[in-house]
Amino acid sequence: MICSKITGTGTFIPSINTKNESFLNANFLDNNGDDFASENSVIIDKFKAITGIEERRYAKDTCKTSDLAFFAAQKAIENAAIQPEDLDYIILAHNFGDVKKGAIQSDILPSLASRVKYRLGIENPNCVAYDILFGCPGWVEGVIQANAFIKAGIASKCLVIGAETLSRVVDKHDRDSMIFSDGAGACIVEKTTTDSLESGILSHATQTFSKDEAYFLHFGNSFNTLEDKNVRYIKMEGRKIYEFAITKVPAAMKVALDKSGVDIDDVKKVFIHQANEKMDEAIIKRFYRLYKKQPPVAIMPMSIHKLGNSSVATIPTLLDLVLKGNIENQEVKKGDVVIFASVGAGMNINAIVYRF
Amino acid sequence: MICSKITGTGTFIPSINTKNESFLNANFLDNNGDDFASENSVIIDKFKAITGIEERRYAKDTCKTSDLAFFAAQKAIENAAIQPEDLDYIILAHNFGDVKKGAIQSDILPSLASRVKYRLGIENPNCVAYDILFGCPGWVEGVIQANAFIKAGIASKCLVIGAETLSRVVDKHDRDSMIFSDGAGACIVEKTTTDSLESGILSHATQTFSKDEAYFLHFGNSFNTLEDKNVRYIKMEGRKIYEFAITKVPAAMKVALDKSGVDIDDVKKVFIHQANEKMDEAIIKRFYRLYKKQPPVAIMPMSIHKLGNSSVATIPTLLDLVLKGNIENQEVKKGDVVIFASVGAGMNINAIVYRF
Repeated sequence: MICSKITGTGTFIPSINTKNESFLNANFLDNNGDDFASENSVIIDKFKAITGIEERRYAKDTCKTSDLAFFAAQKAIENAAIQPEDLDYIILAHNFGDVKKGAIQSDILPSLASRVKYRLGIENPNCVAYDILFGCPGWVEGVIQANAFIKAGIASKCLVIGAETLSRVVDKHDRDSMIFSDGAGACIVEKTTTDSLESGILSHATQTFSKDEAYFLHFGNSFNTLEDKNVRYIKMEGRKIYEFAITKVPAAMKVALDKSGVDIDDVKKVFIHQANEKMDEAIIKRFYRLYKKQPPVAIMPMSIHKLGNSSVATIPTLLDLVLKGNIENQEVKKGDVVIFASVGAGMNINAIVYRF
Repeated sequence: MICSKITGTGTFIPSINTKNESFLNANFLDNNGDDFASENSVIIDKFKAITGIEERRYAKDTCKTSDLAFFAAQKAIENAAIQPEDLDYIILAHNFGDVKKGAIQSDILPSLASRVKYRLGIENPNCVAYDILFGCPGWVEGVIQANAFIKAGIASKCLVIGAETLSRVVDKHDRDSMIFSDGAGACIVEKTTTDSLESGILSHATQTFSKDEAYFLHFGNSFNTLEDKNVRYIKMEGRKIYEFAITKVPAAMKVALDKSGVDIDDVKKVFIHQANEKMDEAIIKRFYRLYKKQPPVAIMPMSIHKLGNSSVATIPTLLDLVLKGNIENQEVKKGDVVIFASVGAGMNINAIVYRF
């Protein structure tokens, strides 16, 4: 039978480290444009207690999303020990395109995947490069699409990248600007043929909720009511997203796990989108509750404390960090079953059950 | 065997009809920012002789790309006589997102596919909505992806839309601004199970050329050198694209046709991306030359004269017009084999061989 395996990973962690203290002098406003009653130090402490974020990374002024994507892609290719010319697909997930520092226009022509292919110097025209827009779950969905192309017989080797420079689209008057960061992660998904499904993608599930939820994450005006109304920023309805995520994500994870036939006790790690620590903990707790269990200790590796929420980049970055021994007391061994799970704009949710 | 069939089509042709004469007072500049020696009337006549374009459609000020996409989607759903709730995928191809009239920012959060799903009122969360960025060939590639999902067993009914408002991203000082237009086209791709591949997608081919070609179509500054350098527009290297397209597109079409096993004499129509009439004619001529043949009369239905180049929307719009008897002396009958072929930013090329 044909199956899809992750044979290499790579990440690019931008060099500019911005700590919570750097927001002490920010002019935060509420969504009516009014000042908060609390001091910034109080706002920041509360922010850290909920999200877990102490610091986050920003790309250098000269780097754009496609540059970050290229750096992560190079490492994934090297790690998988494949030839770039052998790639059948380059799938790049992002949500804002290349945004130059100081500019407000997104540049998505050509696609960022084409730019990465250009920088990788790949000549093979049969390597198809496209971008997918799917909110934060874009990288996980890219892996699901690579798996579909492999099953359909039109691909053997796919490069799937998630890259974002959220620092270029935040409203500095919005407290939520502290959540977002820049980053890129990538993996190589390869076709393998085995007698039984011993390793690789065991199952997956995807959902789009766009009835009441479509605009929970959207592009909107600054909280500073004096700003140009034609300039927009990433905006989120934090509370609604929280309530949505803690019910819908566990359910989708359960759908995927039940499809795989793997017992809940055999799940060794859950790589969850690094959106907000408290929310992620609530999701995991509720997921295990669906099986009348408690989450095992250290089931959920976290990178949000130091890296913030870099959208599509969080899961491939976290995976790379764990696989390469760069997160303390976290490891994945051969045979381990893990779950990738994400939630974000769309509102989209997805999950993959994977055996290493 | 499992195969994929187009069971319905729809198009939305925007209402604002702009004739070539409306460019008589344009301030066209060359790529150095200098005036042309010729009068605009001469420039326009030459433009018409090469591209075939007499008039083009623009969306109303209040409409954005996702609105056009929704209108076309509604018609395709109605034409296929399916229930929106039964859709497994909404795949939306575009290249600039929603651009408000008078604004320069692209809005792609949430994805335009999510917006269409929202407007269609679909509640079913298992209908997955995502956007693909793949240059002008995005709609054809969306159909190829729908086919892959059907073959991989993860979809039965997919809505594939191509929508664009190029009028919002043109540089009015660039003669090429006359080429571009707004529009949307959509189709429903459904899984069918048959003993032999009598109808549906017979074969396909896709290529991405991004070595020297990556930036033939790109986002660049106005030819008016006084304009803000942070504002960019769709820009193309027309001559390079022409040379590229007339060699690479026929070759890709041949790869797809040879894969299908269909004889060149059995091809009844070629639905080619409406980029430029002279270029399209040269592509068809060279495609037939690869088989030592001349193109049959009326093999290539054209809509460019009246609709201009609406990027991802041209092929599904043209297909809808022909299938519904809205292009004179053009029809497709049951059993007819047709080819869809496109070329555009990336640079991407693709082709599908399809039997009705």
